[in-house]
Amino acid sequence: MADVFGGVEGGGTHSKAVLVSENGKILSETDGPSTNHWGMSLSGGEQKDAIDKIICEMKKRFPKLSSDYYITTDAIGAMATASDQGGIVLISGTGSNCKLVNPDGSQVGCGGWGHMMGDEGSAFWISHLAVKTVFDAKDNLATPPHDVTHVKKVMEEYFQVSDLMGMLPHLYRNFQKSHFAGLCQKLALGAAAGDALCQHVFTQAGKVLAQHIVAVLPKAQQPLLTGELPILCVGSVWKSWELLKPGFTQVLAELASTQSFRGRFHGYNLLTLSQSSGSALGGAGLGAKSVGATVTLNYADNANVFYKHSF
Amino acid sequence: MADVFGGVEGGGTHSKAVLVSENGKILSETDGPSTNHWGMSLSGGEQKDAIDKIICEMKKRFPKLSSDYYITTDAIGAMATASDQGGIVLISGTGSNCKLVNPDGSQVGCGGWGHMMGDEGSAFWISHLAVKTVFDAKDNLATPPHDVTHVKKVMEEYFQVSDLMGMLPHLYRNFQKSHFAGLCQKLALGAAAGDALCQHVFTQAGKVLAQHIVAVLPKAQQPLLTGELPILCVGSVWKSWELLKPGFTQVLAELASTQSFRGRFHGYNLLTLSQSSGSALGGAGLGAKSVGATVTLNYADNANVFYKHSF
Repeated sequence: MADVFGGVEGGGTHSKAVLVSENGKILSETDGPSTNHWGMSLSGGEQKDAIDKIICEMKKRFPKLSSDYYITTDAIGAMATASDQGGIVLISGTGSNCKLVNPDGSQVGCGGWGHMMGDEGSAFWISHLAVKTVFDAKDNLATPPHDVTHVKKVMEEYFQVSDLMGMLPHLYRNFQKSHFAGLCQKLALGAAAGDALCQHVFTQAGKVLAQHIVAVLPKAQQPLLTGELPILCVGSVWKSWELLKPGFTQVLAELASTQSFRGRFHGYNLLTLSQSSGSALGGAGLGAKSVGATVTLNYADNANVFYKHSF
Repeated sequence: MADVFGGVEGGGTHSKAVLVSENGKILSETDGPSTNHWGMSLSGGEQKDAIDKIICEMKKRFPKLSSDYYITTDAIGAMATASDQGGIVLISGTGSNCKLVNPDGSQVGCGGWGHMMGDEGSAFWISHLAVKTVFDAKDNLATPPHDVTHVKKVMEEYFQVSDLMGMLPHLYRNFQKSHFAGLCQKLALGAAAGDALCQHVFTQAGKVLAQHIVAVLPKAQQPLLTGELPILCVGSVWKSWELLKPGFTQVLAELASTQSFRGRFHGYNLLTLSQSSGSALGGAGLGAKSVGATVTLNYADNANVFYKHSF
C-alpha cells in the first residue's frame, strides 16, 4: 500500500485537514471547527511538553490513525506549503505572529504572544487601537490624529452600545477576542469609504507588521537576501493590503536605507497561499520529512506573489 | 435618638466601613474583603441602573439597616473626605482613574476603564510595561530604553517562570489582575536599588498620571486655579512618589508653560488621606448631604500635603 500523509491546520476559529500522496496529490480534504491549543494565535505548538502530551493522547485515543505525528506552528506549516528554501511568514488574522525560516531550517520568531502582550498589527490590535482612540478622545487623554465621529458610530453599531460605558461588558465579562477583532472588517469598509481615522489605524498596522520584518531580518542568512525576500502573508487582515501598504512599505524602505542593509536588501515579494488547503498541505510535507519520507509539493502552484517591491 | 451616618469604601481587594455622628465623630469602624462591583478599579458606581438595583436589593435584604442610601465612586468618596471645595482625585492602585470635582460639584473624569482600555500609570500598567519591554527586547521588536536583565530576573522570580513562554498562563488562563499588578512592588525595589529600567517605568507612570491632570484641567473652574490646585492622590502606587516625581513634575511644568495656562496655573499640592477610614468617611458625609443632613468633617485632619509645587 502506498504511503499517505495527513496534514491538519488547527486554527483559532476553524481548521482544515488534507490527505496527500507522496507525489503531492490531494486525496481528500475537509474543514472543521477550532482546534487551537490556546484558543488564540499563539505559539502553542512550540512547547515541547505540550506537543509530547498531545501526541501521546492521539496515540492512545486513536491507535490506528497514524503511525507517526509531527506538530509545529501555523507559521511553519504555511512556510512549508509555499517553499522549501525558507523566507518569512507574517501572520495577521485575529492575532499576529512572525517567523523567519532560514534556508538551513533554523528559525527566528517575533510576536505571537496574544492580545495581552502583543498581537501588533492583527485584527484585534486594529480594532483595539480604533476603540482606544475613541476613549482617549472622549477623556481628552490624547488628541486623536483624525476626527473620531465615524469610528465611534461604527463601534456603537458593531457592539450594539450607546456609550463608552456600554463597551465594558465587551472588554471584560463577555470578552471574546474574535468578536472584538471582528470590528476590524467594519473599519476596513470605513477606510475604503475615505474615513481618515479608519485609514490611519490600518497605516499603523502596516507599520508595526513591517516592524516584525525589521526585527527578524538581521538573523536572515545571505541566500534569503540575494534575490527578493519572500514574505508569506497569512490571515484575513492581508485582504486589506491596500490599506496596510503606506505604513508597511515606508518602514521597509527605511530599513533598506540603514547602514546594515543598504545594498544588501534588494527588495521583497509578498506572497499568499493559493491552496484552499492552506498550511495543512505543508504540514503533511513536514510530517513526511520527519519520518524520512518526501511529499513532492509544487510550490509554484501553492503560493502567488501579490506585491513586488525593489529598492 | 441622634442621627448616625454610615460610610462604606468598597475596594477591589479590601473594604472599610465607618459609622459617624453629625459632628463627624467616628463611632465605629471595621474592615472587610472585596466589594467592588466590577472586581476592578472601574467607574461601576456611575451606572444609574446598577446603583438603583443595588439600593433596591439592600432595602429588600436589610430593611432595617438604613433609611436611605447613596452610592458613588471611590474617587468622589475620597474627595469628600479631603475637602468640600473640590479638587482633583488621582487614583493609582491596581488600576487607575482621575476625577476633577469643581467647587459647584460638577465632575469631569478621565480613565477608569480597566486594564483592557486604560489603567495608565497604575500598578498593573507599570508591571505590564516592564514585562512588555522584556518581551519586545527578546523579540527585537523594540530597542529597550535600558538593559532588561534585572527586570527579566525580577519577573521570572515573581511569576516563578524560567522563560517568556512560562508567562502565558499568567497572562491568559490564570490571569489575575491584582497578582499581575503585584510585580510593581518588586519593580519599585529595583528602582530604589538603582536599576535604570525599573526607574524608567515609574517615570513613564508619573508622566501618564500627570497626563490625566492635563486632560481634566481645562474644565476646572477658576477658584480651583486661584491658589494651589489640590490633587488628592489615592492608591498604593503613590508610596513610590519619589520614583513617579521626575515624569509627573515634568508634564505639569510643560502644562503650566502652555499658552492656555501660563500665569493662570500657579502650582499644585499633592495630598493623601490621613484617616485610616479613608474614603468611607467622605461617603458618610455625602450620604448625609443626600438626605439634607450635614456631617461636619474636619478636612484639615483628613488629608496631608506631601508635595508642594509652585510655578
